[in-house]
Amino acid sequence: MGTCRQGPLTDIRILDLTRVLSGPYTAMMLADLGAEVIKLEQPKIGDDSRHFGPFSNEESAYFMSVNRNKKSITLNLKSPEGKELFKTLAGQVDVILENFRPGTMEKLGLDYKTISQINPKIIYASISGFGQTGPYSRRAAYDGIVQAMGGIMGITGEKGGKPVKIGSSIGDIIAGMFCATGILAAYIHLKKTGEGQYIDVAMLDSQVAILENAISRYTVTGKVPGPTGNTHTSIFPFETFPTKTEDIMIAAGNDVLWCKLCDALGCPELAEDERFCSNPKRGFNHDEMFALLCLRLAEKPAEEWAAILDKAGVPCSLINTIDKVLENEQIQSRDMIVEVDHPIVGKNVIAGIPIKMSLTPGSIYKAAPSLGADNSNVYQELAGLSVRQLDDLKKSGII
Amino acid sequence: MGTCRQGPLTDIRILDLTRVLSGPYTAMMLADLGAEVIKLEQPKIGDDSRHFGPFSNEESAYFMSVNRNKKSITLNLKSPEGKELFKTLAGQVDVILENFRPGTMEKLGLDYKTISQINPKIIYASISGFGQTGPYSRRAAYDGIVQAMGGIMGITGEKGGKPVKIGSSIGDIIAGMFCATGILAAYIHLKKTGEGQYIDVAMLDSQVAILENAISRYTVTGKVPGPTGNTHTSIFPFETFPTKTEDIMIAAGNDVLWCKLCDALGCPELAEDERFCSNPKRGFNHDEMFALLCLRLAEKPAEEWAAILDKAGVPCSLINTIDKVLENEQIQSRDMIVEVDHPIVGKNVIAGIPIKMSLTPGSIYKAAPSLGADNSNVYQELAGLSVRQLDDLKKSGII
Repeated sequence: MGTCRQGPLTDIRILDLTRVLSGPYTAMMLADLGAEVIKLEQPKIGDDSRHFGPFSNEESAYFMSVNRNKKSITLNLKSPEGKELFKTLAGQVDVILENFRPGTMEKLGLDYKTISQINPKIIYASISGFGQTGPYSRRAAYDGIVQAMGGIMGITGEKGGKPVKIGSSIGDIIAGMFCATGILAAYIHLKKTGEGQYIDVAMLDSQVAILENAISRYTVTGKVPGPTGNTHTSIFPFETFPTKTEDIMIAAGNDVLWCKLCDALGCPELAEDERFCSNPKRGFNHDEMFALLCLRLAEKPAEEWAAILDKAGVPCSLINTIDKVLENEQIQSRDMIVEVDHPIVGKNVIAGIPIKMSLTPGSIYKAAPSLGADNSNVYQELAGLSVRQLDDLKKSGII
Repeated sequence: MGTCRQGPLTDIRILDLTRVLSGPYTAMMLADLGAEVIKLEQPKIGDDSRHFGPFSNEESAYFMSVNRNKKSITLNLKSPEGKELFKTLAGQVDVILENFRPGTMEKLGLDYKTISQINPKIIYASISGFGQTGPYSRRAAYDGIVQAMGGIMGITGEKGGKPVKIGSSIGDIIAGMFCATGILAAYIHLKKTGEGQYIDVAMLDSQVAILENAISRYTVTGKVPGPTGNTHTSIFPFETFPTKTEDIMIAAGNDVLWCKLCDALGCPELAEDERFCSNPKRGFNHDEMFALLCLRLAEKPAEEWAAILDKAGVPCSLINTIDKVLENEQIQSRDMIVEVDHPIVGKNVIAGIPIKMSLTPGSIYKAAPSLGADNSNVYQELAGLSVRQLDDLKKSGII
C-alpha cells in the first residue's frame, strides 16, 4: 500500500457522479495514476453499490473494491442550493464524469451545455448503456443486456452449446476503460488549446469494439460465428484438455512448440506423424490429435503436467479459481493483489494497478471512503464554505 | 469513413513494433484518436496476423480489422544497418510500443535503457504475457493461457458446469486497452516535465484487474466463486429465459422494474405475490419465480417479448449473433460498424470507434496498410534517406 497520491495525473481534479461500476472503474483507473477524484454521492444513500453484499463489518466489499483512492462528498442535486454548489465545484475541476441515464443531467439543469458556460475548459464525460444518441439512447441498460445485445455472449460458451455471459461485468468495465482513455486524450487537447469538450461512451458500443475477429470472420465467410468452447479458431492445439485430475489449458502456437509438447508428453512419435506436422494439418485432423493427446494427459494429474510443460517451455495453465489466482506467485510478485487498511473493515483485499510506470508509478494509498467523509475539506477548500454553513447544509439534508 | 487523420492526439508519433493483437489494439486506439502510428514489420513476412485466415483477396481479414489508420514500414532489426536505422527513427518519435517476449529488445540492443540515451523523452511501452518482472516473466503466453490463469475462465460458464473461455481474445485486448491509458498518462507527464519513461503492461495482470467482485466475494465469504451461468449473483431476475423460440435476457434491477415486468408479461398477480415482493425475496425464492416467468415467456417468440418489454421499459435483449449485431439499429446509428475502402479488397467491414468526442472526434480514414507501404515516405522524411539508399536497403533485405 502506498502512502500518498502520486503518478502522472496529479494535476487532474475529477468530480465523479458515477454509481456502481462503469464510471467508478474509469475514476479508479485515473485515481490510481494520481488524479484527485471527488466522488459526489446522494446524501444518506450514496452510491447504490454501497448496498451490494457481501459486507465486511457492514461495509460493502463490492464498493470497496472499486472506490479506493477517492474522496467522498454528498450533495442533493435536486435542491436549488445543491445545484448552485455543484456549479461552484464544476468551476474548480478539470473533469466531470457521470453515468446517469441520458437526459438526467439535462433535467437537473447540470448538463454539458450549462456547465461549459460556467467552465469552458471542462471535460465532461458521460457513460451510458446505449449512448447519448440513437433510437435506444433513453433505455436503461445493465451489463447482462449489453453483453447479450453486443455479441460477446453469442460467441462464448461450450462448442455447439448455449451462449454464456462473461463471469465479470465486462459490459461496464470495458466502457469504463474506453472512457478513461477518452478523458486523457481530451486532457491532452485541453492542455494544448485550452478547450474542453464532451465525451460520450456507450456500453453497447464498447462491446462491439472488443469482438475481435468475429466480425471479419462473419463478413468475409458469411458463416455466423457461434460459441467455440475453449478452443482457438485457427491454432491447434490451443484448448483445454482433461487430465487425471482437472482440466489444463495448453497452447502450442507453432510447429516448434508442437514438437516440444509431444516430447514433454512422452509421445515424440506424434511430432513425426504426418497427420500433425503443420498447423493446418493439426486443424484438419484435430479430433484424432485431441484424442491421442488426451490418452497421454490422462496419466498424470494436471499440476504435474503443468510443471513438466513449464519446464519444456510449452505455454500452459491450470484453470485457476479465484483462490488460486490470489495465491499465484507471478500475480503476487507483480503486486496485483493488494491489502488495503480500511478504518472500519481492517484489512481489505483488492486488485492492484495493471499499468506499471517506471518514473511516475501510481499507488493505492487509501481505502474507499465512507459516505461524505470529505465534505468538510472539499467544501471548505473548493467552495469556501464555513463550518457554520456546512452545518446548515447538513441539517437541511443538502449535503 | 473519414478523410484524414484527426483527433486530440495528432501531435503524437508512435513507432509500433507489435504483432497480432495486444499491441496492435493499443496502437489502433491511439491512431483512431489521431496519433501517427508507424507500424514496423519484419521484411517480407510482416505481422504474423497477416497470415491468419479468413482472407479476402489474399488479405487477412484479421489483420485488416485491427490495423486501420496505420502506416507500415519494414525493417530487419537483426542487421547492424537495421539497428542504426531504428535508432534514427527512435529519435524522431514520442512513443515506442513493443510486445516481444521480455528480453528480446535487450538482445537486439534496442531496449529502453539504450533508446532513452538517444532520446530521453521517449515513452517506451512493452506489453507481455506475464510482465517484465517476476518468476514467469520469460515465459510465452497466449490469450487462452492468461484467461485460464487469471481467473476469468473460472467464473465463466454454465452454473455448476465447466469453465469457459471468453469468445474474443480479451486476454490481449484488455492489456492493449490498459497500455493505451498508460501511454497517454505518460505523455501528459512528458508534456509537463520533458521526461520520458518506461511502461510495463502484462496480460496476466490485466486479467486480474477485471475480475470485479469475484475477489471480494471470495476474500469476504471464503467461498470460491464458480461459473454463474447467465444469472447475476445479487439481482433477481437478471438472467436468460427460454421463450417459444430462442432465449431472452431480462434484467429487472429493482422493484419498480419487477412490477413493470409482471404487468408486461400479463401476470400482474406476481407483482403482488409476497414471495417476490423484494429483491432478497426474489433471490430466496428464485427457482419458483423463474419457473413462473418461464410459463408466461413460453407463450410467445423471443422477438415479440422483446418488443413488449421494450415498450414497457423493462431492460431486455435477444442474445445477438454477430449477423444481428451488424444489423442492430442502435449499433448502426452510433457508427460502430464501418465500411472501409481497401485498395486490394474493396469494401471491408470493421468495428467503429467507441470513444465519441464532441470537439476532436477521431476518424477511420484509411484501411490497413500493405506490408511496407510507407517505406519511402517514412524513411525519407524521418531518416533523410535518398531513393538510391532506399533501393540499396531493399536489395539487401534490410527493409
